[in-house]
Amino acid sequence: MKISIIGAGNVAWHLAITLEDHHHTICEVFSRTEDKAEKLCSLLYRAEATTDLNFAESEAEFFILAVADDAWEDVCSKLILPEDAILAHTSGTKSLEDLQKLMQIHHDLPVKCAVFYPLMTFTAGKELNFKSVPLCLESDDEDVEQILLEIAQEISQHVYFIDSAERRVLHVAAVFACNFTNHLLALSKTITDSENLDFDLLKPLISETFKKALNANDPVEVQTGPAIRRDKSIINRHLDYLRDDARLLEIYEVLTESIQNT
Amino acid sequence: MKISIIGAGNVAWHLAITLEDHHHTICEVFSRTEDKAEKLCSLLYRAEATTDLNFAESEAEFFILAVADDAWEDVCSKLILPEDAILAHTSGTKSLEDLQKLMQIHHDLPVKCAVFYPLMTFTAGKELNFKSVPLCLESDDEDVEQILLEIAQEISQHVYFIDSAERRVLHVAAVFACNFTNHLLALSKTITDSENLDFDLLKPLISETFKKALNANDPVEVQTGPAIRRDKSIINRHLDYLRDDARLLEIYEVLTESIQNT
Repeated sequence: MKISIIGAGNVAWHLAITLEDHHHTICEVFSRTEDKAEKLCSLLYRAEATTDLNFAESEAEFFILAVADDAWEDVCSKLILPEDAILAHTSGTKSLEDLQKLMQIHHDLPVKCAVFYPLMTFTAGKELNFKSVPLCLESDDEDVEQILLEIAQEISQHVYFIDSAERRVLHVAAVFACNFTNHLLALSKTITDSENLDFDLLKPLISETFKKALNANDPVEVQTGPAIRRDKSIINRHLDYLRDDARLLEIYEVLTESIQNT
Repeated sequence: MKISIIGAGNVAWHLAITLEDHHHTICEVFSRTEDKAEKLCSLLYRAEATTDLNFAESEAEFFILAVADDAWEDVCSKLILPEDAILAHTSGTKSLEDLQKLMQIHHDLPVKCAVFYPLMTFTAGKELNFKSVPLCLESDDEDVEQILLEIAQEISQHVYFIDSAERRVLHVAAVFACNFTNHLLALSKTITDSENLDFDLLKPLISETFKKALNANDPVEVQTGPAIRRDKSIINRHLDYLRDDARLLEIYEVLTESIQNT
């Protein structure tokens, strides 16, 4: 299939390279910054870098909108697509309807909108086995669904149709499971740093904890620590140690209570 | 070295088997439950199971106290060791002094106390490469330190002398990095469950998040999500979604604020 990518960030990079690995042709890569588009194109066979959003003459049939949410308004107002093209966005937080509405405001002809959302955190330049990346698809058109499915199943082993409401719930769940856990690891490091202890000491335990949680039927089954044991003497000792740091103290209390109320 | 293990729980299992793999002799395994001691002994060459804490006639020179913290009082009051034996405990929360005091109360002769604390979560029956388990050692006697070091370095590549105050700090840090993160994963699953979404969808993202955090110089450098981006519209949408669950709402607010204040 002939595909163009609107965006040259981390999601655009990983999708463009993976799709080409699976014998799709990337026609154009758009970025507001020409350098960024050219850098990605230099890794692709024949893709052209562009800073122009008029794709009326493009050969591509499938367009992937992989720009930051706050660039949508600007990009969609200028975007001109060939007739019958599909426009699939990669945002975890925007709905299918959000894209449909924006495209309706700015364009007379209807555009076939879709969602092609990889549920993953991408790092520039860091290779990643795309086969293991869950792809969440959505469309309100059966033919488009079929095309999304064919492309998705080529590049990933984990393909799901997830509607916009479900995707929003997944995003809230991901904030708890990823953003907040990362923050707790960061706080843990501030504790070891404050006593000149090496955070590396904790890393084997952290790795094992995560392996256990992900291999369990439910992480709640492998909960350990003073909160779940209701070990008041240790909890009080910890609260006493944290008493000068209002932030750590509050988090310790809130999460300890939550574990005990599970 | 001739070693006896007081306790037959997860820590006792892993230590006994690992020490024997490194050509130490396990003489006795104590448990209040004979079955448990016998089960562990059946995996060892010549260890004898016992429910008696009188080791006066034991050949062992090194005793590992690997019972739950709340069994210490009872075990130490009955424990009789051969002259000059070393008694090393495996608790992350008890100090060296805690053990010294308990042994002084109940015994006329001084006992050489020590700490031999594996900073790891053990699961019964689940093999684990002990080489990667950090061992935290402590003693106030140079000769004992030397013996601890020799044993520890045989079985682990990560050996540290950590005093009781430092071990307490590590334990607080581990609660944040392990117990609390596990709880957040459990909460995340309650969110996906509530909408009949498969928690497995999030697992690749969770694995990648943890890999990134542990490979970074500091997890704070790889923080992602709406809180660090100060994306108010998404945060408000999430708060709106969580408004009927006071517990999830409070945790979301507290951790979002903490990320923004970092």
